[in-house]
Amino acid sequence: MDTASGLTYAVLGTGALGGYYGACLQKAGLEVHYLLRSDFDLVQRQGLVIESPDGDFALPQVNAYRRSPDMPRCDVVIVALKTTQNHLLPDLLPPVVKDDGVVLVLQNGLGVEAEAAAIAGPERVLGGLCFLCSNKVGPGRIRHLDYKKISMGEYSAAGEAVGITDRMRRIAADFERADIPIELAEDLVLARWKKLMWNIPFNGLSVVLNATTQDMMANPDARSLAEALMEEVMKGAAAQGRAIAPEFVQTMLDHTAKMKPYRTSMKIDYDEKRPLEVEAMYGNPLRAAQAVGARLPQIQTLYQQLRFLDAQNRGL
Amino acid sequence: MDTASGLTYAVLGTGALGGYYGACLQKAGLEVHYLLRSDFDLVQRQGLVIESPDGDFALPQVNAYRRSPDMPRCDVVIVALKTTQNHLLPDLLPPVVKDDGVVLVLQNGLGVEAEAAAIAGPERVLGGLCFLCSNKVGPGRIRHLDYKKISMGEYSAAGEAVGITDRMRRIAADFERADIPIELAEDLVLARWKKLMWNIPFNGLSVVLNATTQDMMANPDARSLAEALMEEVMKGAAAQGRAIAPEFVQTMLDHTAKMKPYRTSMKIDYDEKRPLEVEAMYGNPLRAAQAVGARLPQIQTLYQQLRFLDAQNRGL
Repeated sequence: MDTASGLTYAVLGTGALGGYYGACLQKAGLEVHYLLRSDFDLVQRQGLVIESPDGDFALPQVNAYRRSPDMPRCDVVIVALKTTQNHLLPDLLPPVVKDDGVVLVLQNGLGVEAEAAAIAGPERVLGGLCFLCSNKVGPGRIRHLDYKKISMGEYSAAGEAVGITDRMRRIAADFERADIPIELAEDLVLARWKKLMWNIPFNGLSVVLNATTQDMMANPDARSLAEALMEEVMKGAAAQGRAIAPEFVQTMLDHTAKMKPYRTSMKIDYDEKRPLEVEAMYGNPLRAAQAVGARLPQIQTLYQQLRFLDAQNRGL
Repeated sequence: MDTASGLTYAVLGTGALGGYYGACLQKAGLEVHYLLRSDFDLVQRQGLVIESPDGDFALPQVNAYRRSPDMPRCDVVIVALKTTQNHLLPDLLPPVVKDDGVVLVLQNGLGVEAEAAAIAGPERVLGGLCFLCSNKVGPGRIRHLDYKKISMGEYSAAGEAVGITDRMRRIAADFERADIPIELAEDLVLARWKKLMWNIPFNGLSVVLNATTQDMMANPDARSLAEALMEEVMKGAAAQGRAIAPEFVQTMLDHTAKMKPYRTSMKIDYDEKRPLEVEAMYGNPLRAAQAVGARLPQIQTLYQQLRFLDAQNRGL
């Protein structure tokens, strides 16, 4: 058995995503520190439980913290909050990053690394896109359903492709040791646009149409609308100099048709009356495209519908 | 007191709209014949009751029919069905139109006269747009809430402006005698596009966003989306050679902001699980614009969302 890297990890946001990846790393022998809010008392006493098709496991003892200044400084700080919580980062992040540490932003959307970069410095930020289905089913209890791959890349303030670095490889080795497949992305911006090819149509439409992925794929109008939205995502990516092959639309549709009926993360947030990640997933891509002269009117329509529904849903 | 024209009227579809206008004409002394389905028995026995801010009135005796072949041929046949019922017209219409009679299509949308024109001949069709808030509150009982104006114009198969004709003036005189304001439109197609300036944003969004006009006007995103949709309607009209002044957008918004909170006709249909008038109001304008090379992507988005919601709503 090979040994762990010796890197220490902090997880900001110990929910369905951060709790799952943190627990996997800890189980693989790595030192992990978890920031919690509502679940702190229970997790400090009883630890974390992961249910997974890969095998259930429990970690009765975890390093749990209620406040980030109480945490040790770590080599890799995983931001696993919802993007709607990023306004908390100026308080949460500074006490927990080592002077030569890095921040790994595991969030959906485009440009979501900007807040972390403003705090820790752009040269110390990486981004990761998680292909993960998991839910928190109780305090400290996470149910992993399907997929777990992470696509990871270096952040660049100028939005350039940075390529693959040694620290990417070192972190990837830790995740792979924890049985999490990692894809190293030479161009984080391209990787993020490619993930938006799925997220923009299916997250938004699932809320507006009150539908599962299966409902949408079974209806010619919803399916064709999803396709048209994907084509606008391609247009936005192209405006930022990122070519996505047209065949990728069909790949995504085929993939979605084969998935089990799936309630998207945005639909779960909506049903739970939590804030929707509308700016990270729609507002930022729209603004990025607009800044280089690209209009994306169908995405714009969905964006404003979602902002309205989000406000009504939370009584704003 | 002046006398009625002597024209006889048939009303196909004696609901919130046809029942209201028919009753007003009958009350003004005109001969009116009503086609009914579910309410036939009760209306034949008890007649029609209109509640209205202009004064309630009852017509204990009306000429009610269950089948159109039983009706006398009339000078003016008012089509007051929902457009989703227009597939019935080949059966309903022929027995009831006099040889020199006309068909007045009082329906929402664009190109909705085409079915009647194919049956009665294009030269014998007029279209009317109703600015009317009314509901059927029980069998044979209609509540008129607000507005009642009709804008009426001659149909042209080529989509040209026909101008104002003598028969328009003659029919208008009957409606005016019944205290219904009539606006004579020289160009029916322009009048229809102008009505779509309101119907396309507010009918569709009220269903997709589950919102009243007031909810939408109070929210900056919904309001700005309505505005963008209006601008696409203007673009569609322009593509068909109809100029709508840009100031009309603001006029419509101001007008809507001042209205009482209003559940649109499409939202009522949706809530009652009736078919939505999606093709008349969205499909036809989109196809008309597309035929002359105009893309309306925001209206297209709403159209496909509505088709999906309509299908789900009725378990199709």
